[in-house]
Amino acid sequence: MSDVTTTDLYEVTMALSYLREDMHSPATFSLFVRDLPPGRGFLVTAGLEPALDFLARYRVDRDDVEEFAAALHRPVRDLMPLLGLAFEGEVRAVPEGRVMFAGEPLLEVTAPLPQAQLIETYLLNQFCHQTVVASKAARCVLAAAGRPVVDFSLRRAHGPWAGLQAARLGTLVGFAGTSNVAAAVSLGIPASGTMAHSYIEAFPSEEAAFRAFALSHPGPVTFLVDTYDTQEGVRIAARVLTDLGLGPGCAIRLDSGDLDALARRARALLDSAGLADVRIVASGGLDEYGVDRLVRASAPIDVYAVGTKVGVAADAPYLDAAYKLVEYAGRPVTKLSSAKITAPGRKQVFRRAGLPDVIALAQEDPPDSAQPLLRTVMRDGRRTGPPDHWQDARERFREDIAALPDSARRIEDPEPVPPVRSPALEQLTARVRSGIEARLRRPAAVLPPSALSARPS
Amino acid sequence: MSDVTTTDLYEVTMALSYLREDMHSPATFSLFVRDLPPGRGFLVTAGLEPALDFLARYRVDRDDVEEFAAALHRPVRDLMPLLGLAFEGEVRAVPEGRVMFAGEPLLEVTAPLPQAQLIETYLLNQFCHQTVVASKAARCVLAAAGRPVVDFSLRRAHGPWAGLQAARLGTLVGFAGTSNVAAAVSLGIPASGTMAHSYIEAFPSEEAAFRAFALSHPGPVTFLVDTYDTQEGVRIAARVLTDLGLGPGCAIRLDSGDLDALARRARALLDSAGLADVRIVASGGLDEYGVDRLVRASAPIDVYAVGTKVGVAADAPYLDAAYKLVEYAGRPVTKLSSAKITAPGRKQVFRRAGLPDVIALAQEDPPDSAQPLLRTVMRDGRRTGPPDHWQDARERFREDIAALPDSARRIEDPEPVPPVRSPALEQLTARVRSGIEARLRRPAAVLPPSALSARPS
Repeated sequence: MSDVTTTDLYEVTMALSYLREDMHSPATFSLFVRDLPPGRGFLVTAGLEPALDFLARYRVDRDDVEEFAAALHRPVRDLMPLLGLAFEGEVRAVPEGRVMFAGEPLLEVTAPLPQAQLIETYLLNQFCHQTVVASKAARCVLAAAGRPVVDFSLRRAHGPWAGLQAARLGTLVGFAGTSNVAAAVSLGIPASGTMAHSYIEAFPSEEAAFRAFALSHPGPVTFLVDTYDTQEGVRIAARVLTDLGLGPGCAIRLDSGDLDALARRARALLDSAGLADVRIVASGGLDEYGVDRLVRASAPIDVYAVGTKVGVAADAPYLDAAYKLVEYAGRPVTKLSSAKITAPGRKQVFRRAGLPDVIALAQEDPPDSAQPLLRTVMRDGRRTGPPDHWQDARERFREDIAALPDSARRIEDPEPVPPVRSPALEQLTARVRSGIEARLRRPAAVLPPSALSARPS
Repeated sequence: MSDVTTTDLYEVTMALSYLREDMHSPATFSLFVRDLPPGRGFLVTAGLEPALDFLARYRVDRDDVEEFAAALHRPVRDLMPLLGLAFEGEVRAVPEGRVMFAGEPLLEVTAPLPQAQLIETYLLNQFCHQTVVASKAARCVLAAAGRPVVDFSLRRAHGPWAGLQAARLGTLVGFAGTSNVAAAVSLGIPASGTMAHSYIEAFPSEEAAFRAFALSHPGPVTFLVDTYDTQEGVRIAARVLTDLGLGPGCAIRLDSGDLDALARRARALLDSAGLADVRIVASGGLDEYGVDRLVRASAPIDVYAVGTKVGVAADAPYLDAAYKLVEYAGRPVTKLSSAKITAPGRKQVFRRAGLPDVIALAQEDPPDSAQPLLRTVMRDGRRTGPPDHWQDARERFREDIAALPDSARRIEDPEPVPPVRSPALEQLTARVRSGIEARLRRPAAVLPPSALSARPS
């Protein structure tokens, strides 16, 4: 098993057929999201960096050929045309961390058709998952309105790999840390976490547990106070902190119950114990909706830990994303069977301050003072620059989100800012469409390419 | 980064503290699901096999120690007590593929406290994700009512690892195949898939595409017919199949639109072309709800391909699963702060034909003709037998699901069969609870273990 065979079988059957037919001409595929899920005012694009790593090392080796042959129940020699195939194409893409909308290409691949086809499944897998989680995490940051948010999602993420990505994607949109040790160390971000209820239960009493914890961990500590009786837990925590001369940097954590009410009582108890600088961390089933309610209620919570619902993007765990052929051998193409019309041709997205994005053809000149969002990030199968750092992605996100209208940023019933299409793109779409419709009205036959679609002007 | 550091930081801080306090006594943790998600009448337990692989190889090495130190901003020597720590405990668990309900332990670990604690995050990660996806996949098999179901979820699963697991979990509950090459080959199951719309678009016409595909793929083929006009696509497919003398084993695939209506028209066209043995495959946004509607409408669909919504368990993408300390150093323990009361003590689940399961204490004698569901699968950190094969899990699932009442199996508004608790377990729960409540009414102090909880009788 390898990244190369982590693919849908049909990519392999198509590639084999293309090779047999000598269909090596350049194909452009466009990766985009058809519609935003309900409850989303924007997407935060993510998945490009792992996708580029995948493309840079893509090479069908002997083991892959044998796996393909086994899957197809065909002799290995039939699959040998694929041996050594690497990705040698161009990738134009929107860098990670940018705020994007439905219909906008996030990535366009141009490569010999068999190459561009074989990589489809893995690219969709990366972009769908990561964009959906980054977009949910971004809303948590908005809901927290400046308070730190940390990631506790590993235990319920869809596998260890998804857990690592949840930490990365949270970081990308501004999370302050993660409970995931491997993720924290590999990303160079703060690791966060203290104790579970089981820790308290293993000791004869909460006080014994808190004292033992403080003794084994020099520096600031966080005590989990809701194992038995939360108010009593706060009193015990306050006494231990006071006895040990701790305070600044320390915290208590609430993990269940009415977090608003418990936080108010805890704050009062801590303040009256002279522990005004001890912070309150809240966790337990939170996502942007829960954080938003607590923040709007002015609950005295200093740090929000979000987990399960964010790591799996519980209310919208997938995107209606597609990787569509938009041009082959110089002719723009599209599919016509349903409401899902894909605009043909290589594209660019232009962004202008205070106005909707424009989806245009790649060769169009930008409107005045517009910024093109797709950049060439890979050429001849090699990255055009060093890998992106999450700090750069975070900065892009910070700028993009600040420029977004409140209506798109709000937590409840947000409204996206739909992009518009350039006149040239509209014209090409109409031409390609009517070309196909004309063909369908005629008796079916093997027709030359010119009958299938209009040529680009 | 390793499986060992793919953990929440608090597992490490707790383990360090336990080691410092010489708290090496045996601890039992119980892994269970508190509540079934809405729309679920049962769970199919999964995740044990990868969890046992993890436990068998668990060992904190030098790199792990360094990562822990980095995450805690502490000198490496502070973490050295963890070096070489391996899992040497016992695991009692329900094997994969069994039908289970809320509150029933799926796994119980008994090991020295630091070991039993350190493995929590990874175990939860495996069980939560895999049980949730297996349970959704099982419902698709029920909805299809005997028709083959295949997995197309890789492109939208939460990463490549989740995609592999989706294929495995579908197989476990009876799927006929998967589009995922790596998964198909590693599991030894059929790989499924033919062509994308892009394949059709890359050729001058549908007919040219179908002919090229058949030429490059000896044996039965499946043609995707909905790229432009679905009825016309079926006609062209029928003509190509007839011309090439193909038929038995071949299929057409519908991937969009009104699948019921399109399938009826396609069936009529194929039948009138003398292609009654050409099958119809349906895909496109299907899960158990969509399959159920089509099957109940008697749509002439022979194979159902389910993808996105099943791979991410879209309507219920996580479980409220917990890994709770239930016994430490011989005394049963629990947590009291919320409605989430955990029953203390080591447990067993007894299953009797036609009656609800009984959750009992591990040492209780089974009721008459009851089957204990938890088996000892690991002792002294080693598996007690060879790894389970998916065929055995599938057979267990087949038997369990057949024994389930229709009300739990149905797709819309299913009703689970809640387990009952044995009198001995009820009594222990009450004793431990009142012991803690008595302690909370007295002035807080460091109390001996006897004050925290009742001793088991």
